[in-house]
Amino acid sequence: MRLSKLFTRTVKETPKDELSFNAQVLIRGGFIDKLAAGVYTFLPLGLRVHNKICRIIREEMDKIGGQELLMAALTPKELWQTTDRWDNFDALFKLKGNDGKEYALGATHEEIVTPTVKKHIFSYKDLSICVYQIQTKFRNELRAKAGLIRGREFSMKDAYSFHPDEESLNEYYKIVQETYFKIFERLGILNITYLTYASGGAFSKYSHEYQTLCSAGEDTIYICDKCKIAVNHEIIGEVDGCPACGNKDLHEEKAVEVANIFKLNTRFSKPFGFTYLDEAGQAKDIIMGCYGMGPSRLMGTIVEVSHDDKGIIWPANIAPFQVHLISLRQNDAADALYNELIEAKIEVLYDDREDLSAGEKFAQADLMGLPYRIVVSEKTLADKAVEVKLRSANQAELVKLKDLISYLGG
Amino acid sequence: MRLSKLFTRTVKETPKDELSFNAQVLIRGGFIDKLAAGVYTFLPLGLRVHNKICRIIREEMDKIGGQELLMAALTPKELWQTTDRWDNFDALFKLKGNDGKEYALGATHEEIVTPTVKKHIFSYKDLSICVYQIQTKFRNELRAKAGLIRGREFSMKDAYSFHPDEESLNEYYKIVQETYFKIFERLGILNITYLTYASGGAFSKYSHEYQTLCSAGEDTIYICDKCKIAVNHEIIGEVDGCPACGNKDLHEEKAVEVANIFKLNTRFSKPFGFTYLDEAGQAKDIIMGCYGMGPSRLMGTIVEVSHDDKGIIWPANIAPFQVHLISLRQNDAADALYNELIEAKIEVLYDDREDLSAGEKFAQADLMGLPYRIVVSEKTLADKAVEVKLRSANQAELVKLKDLISYLGG
Repeated sequence: MRLSKLFTRTVKETPKDELSFNAQVLIRGGFIDKLAAGVYTFLPLGLRVHNKICRIIREEMDKIGGQELLMAALTPKELWQTTDRWDNFDALFKLKGNDGKEYALGATHEEIVTPTVKKHIFSYKDLSICVYQIQTKFRNELRAKAGLIRGREFSMKDAYSFHPDEESLNEYYKIVQETYFKIFERLGILNITYLTYASGGAFSKYSHEYQTLCSAGEDTIYICDKCKIAVNHEIIGEVDGCPACGNKDLHEEKAVEVANIFKLNTRFSKPFGFTYLDEAGQAKDIIMGCYGMGPSRLMGTIVEVSHDDKGIIWPANIAPFQVHLISLRQNDAADALYNELIEAKIEVLYDDREDLSAGEKFAQADLMGLPYRIVVSEKTLADKAVEVKLRSANQAELVKLKDLISYLGG
Repeated sequence: MRLSKLFTRTVKETPKDELSFNAQVLIRGGFIDKLAAGVYTFLPLGLRVHNKICRIIREEMDKIGGQELLMAALTPKELWQTTDRWDNFDALFKLKGNDGKEYALGATHEEIVTPTVKKHIFSYKDLSICVYQIQTKFRNELRAKAGLIRGREFSMKDAYSFHPDEESLNEYYKIVQETYFKIFERLGILNITYLTYASGGAFSKYSHEYQTLCSAGEDTIYICDKCKIAVNHEIIGEVDGCPACGNKDLHEEKAVEVANIFKLNTRFSKPFGFTYLDEAGQAKDIIMGCYGMGPSRLMGTIVEVSHDDKGIIWPANIAPFQVHLISLRQNDAADALYNELIEAKIEVLYDDREDLSAGEKFAQADLMGLPYRIVVSEKTLADKAVEVKLRSANQAELVKLKDLISYLGG
C-alpha cells in the first residue's frame, strides 16, 4: 500500500475527547476513528490489525474442532425471558420494531446458540461439539472511557461447547485453556497473561479469566509466582491463597480481562429443554461450556502494553504491514524495491510521498509502529544498500539490497 | 469436513413458519436458522457460502482502489439530524443508552462515513478516493417474509467515493458499473441481472439498480432487449421507453434488487461542511457517490434462481465445498480418497456416516447442492473408479481413481 493512496492521515495532536492511551494513539496513527464513547470505526490500517487477530483466533479454534457460524445481533425478547435474563442483564440494549416486537442487541449469545444447536443434536452420537463465531457485541455501559478496552460495540469470539456429561466438558475445557495460551503466544502477550480464578456467577464455583498485566487495566488480580496463575480481586476474600498450590504470598497487579471461560453446566440447556438420548435411550441434560475472547479489546490491550513515547510497537504477527518503506527523494529505486518486496509476499506500507521531510516520515513511522523501517536514500544507495531498523530497536543497520529479502525472512 | 462431525442436520419437512423458498431450502439444508422474521443465523455451511460471496466482492472492490474499513452499527442521533434523516428514514431502528444517548442502528452509512473521511481529506491532492465495508445493516421493516431477500438484519457491502468534481465522480461511477458486472459474472448471475434505471431520490435524476430476474422478486422491471438494460416500475411513467435507445417495446419481469448505486453529489458533503482546497486554494464542495450490494440478499436470490425440485444447485464459485463425497459402506477407500482430495486443495464435504442408506445420502446431497457428487461403493471400486455426477447434470459417469484429481481440475 502506498501512503500517497491511503486516505488516512496521522495526527500530531492528541484527541481532546479521548482519555485512554490506546484510543489516543490508535486515532493519531489512523487506525481507528471515534464515533461515540465506546464506539469506533476501524480504518484500513486498524481493520488489518483486527483481521489478523481474528485470523489467529480462528485458526486455533478450528484446530480444536470449533465449527464457525454467525449469529444475529437482533435477538428476540422471548429468548432472554426464557432464561430470566431480560430483566437481569443490566447491560442489554433493548429496542422495539415497527411491528411491536422487542429485541435485545446481543451482548452474549447463550440464549441464541442453545435453541439453535438443540434443533440439530438428538443423540449421544452427536456429541460433543463446539461452535463459535467472531461477531459484533453490544453492551449498554454507563461509562466507556477505556478506548478499545471497554466498548459499547465491540468484537467478540464467543464459543459454546455441548457435552453429554461433566467429564466431557472438563476435558474440552482444558483443551480450550491450552488453545488460549497458544493464541496469546501468537499475539505476543503470553508472558504477561495469567489464567485467573474468578467468580463463577450463577453457573459454577469459579470461572476462569485471562488477565493481561496492564497499568490501564480495570481489574485487580493477585498473582502466584510459583504457579503463574492469579486470583481476581472479586473472590480474593473467598480463597485461602493460591487455588492451585495454597501459596499465600500473592502480589497485586492491574490487568485487563482479555478472555474468559465458564462451565455453564445446565444453566442454559435446562430452560430451553435441551436434552439428548443416551446409549440406554434415556433423556439427559446437555452440559455446556462457553469461551469468550475479545479481538478488539486485545487490540487495545496490546497497544497499552507495547509502545514507547514515540508510538505503537506492533508484534509482527498482527502488524498491519511488516515493512514501513520510506523513500527520501529516491522514488525510482524505492518503487523498484516496493515491487520486489511485494513479489516476495512481504507486506509493505510504502511512504512514497514527496512533500514530507525525512523527520516527518520517521516520526509517522514510529507512531504507526510497523516491525521494520526501511529507508532508501541517496546515501544508502551509494552503498547499494538500504537502512533497516527494527521498531523495537534503537540502532539501524545497512543491509545490501541483494540481501534484503533473505534478511527479512522472505 | 466430515458429515459425521458437522453438527447441522438436514431436515425433510419444510419449515411451517417460513413462506419464502430460499429460506425454506436453506433451513432444510442446514445453511441457515431462523431466529425471527427477517433475522437469521448463518450455520457453518451457510457461512461458507456467504464468506465466498464476500470474498469475490472484496477482491473486485480492491481492484478498483477501494479501501476497506469497518464502521459501527450504533450510530449517534446527531449525525442523522445533521442530514435531516433521523425523522425521515422510516426503517431506522432507534434506541437509547443508559446514559440517555440516542442511536440508530446503521441502515446505511452516509452519515458516518462522510464526517469520518472529512477528518483525513483536505486538498485536491487527496482526491479521489473510495472506501467500502462489508458490514451488518439493520432495517426496521414492517414485514419481512422473503427470507434472505429482505432481512431486518442483513449484510451489505457499501462503498462511498469522494471526488473533486462531477466529472471525476462520473468516471468512477462507470468503473463501479463495470466492476459490478464482473462480480455478477463470478457469482453466476450475469446473464439474468440487468442494470436498471430507478428513482434518484433526493440526490439526482436517476439512480441505478442491478435487478436479477426472479419470480420471487418484489420489484417489477421493464427490460429493453436491445440494450440489455431495464427501467424500474417506480419511474416507468416518467421515461419515454428505454432511457438508452428510446425503444418503446419493453417487457415486464419480476426481479430482485441485488445492488444499487447513487450519485450523491453534495447531498451529504454539504450538511457536514465537507470541502477541500482546489489548486487555486479555494474551498470547494466534495462530490460523492455510493455503491451498495447485498451479500446475504445475493445468497437468497441465487438459491431462488438456481435450484430444482430436489434442492439447491450452487454455482461452483460460491458452493460451500466443491465435492460431496459419499461413502457407501466403503469408508477405508473413501477415507483415503478424502485425504487425497484435501491434499490436492479440493474442498470436500465427506458423508462418512454409517447409519444412513444410500438413498438418504443421495437425497441430502441433492438438497445441499454441491457441484460434484462423488460416490465410492463396492461396485465402483471393482472398477478402480468412483461415480461422479455434476449436481446440474442428470447422468453420472465412472472416473478412474487415478484420473479423479485431474478430472476435477485439481
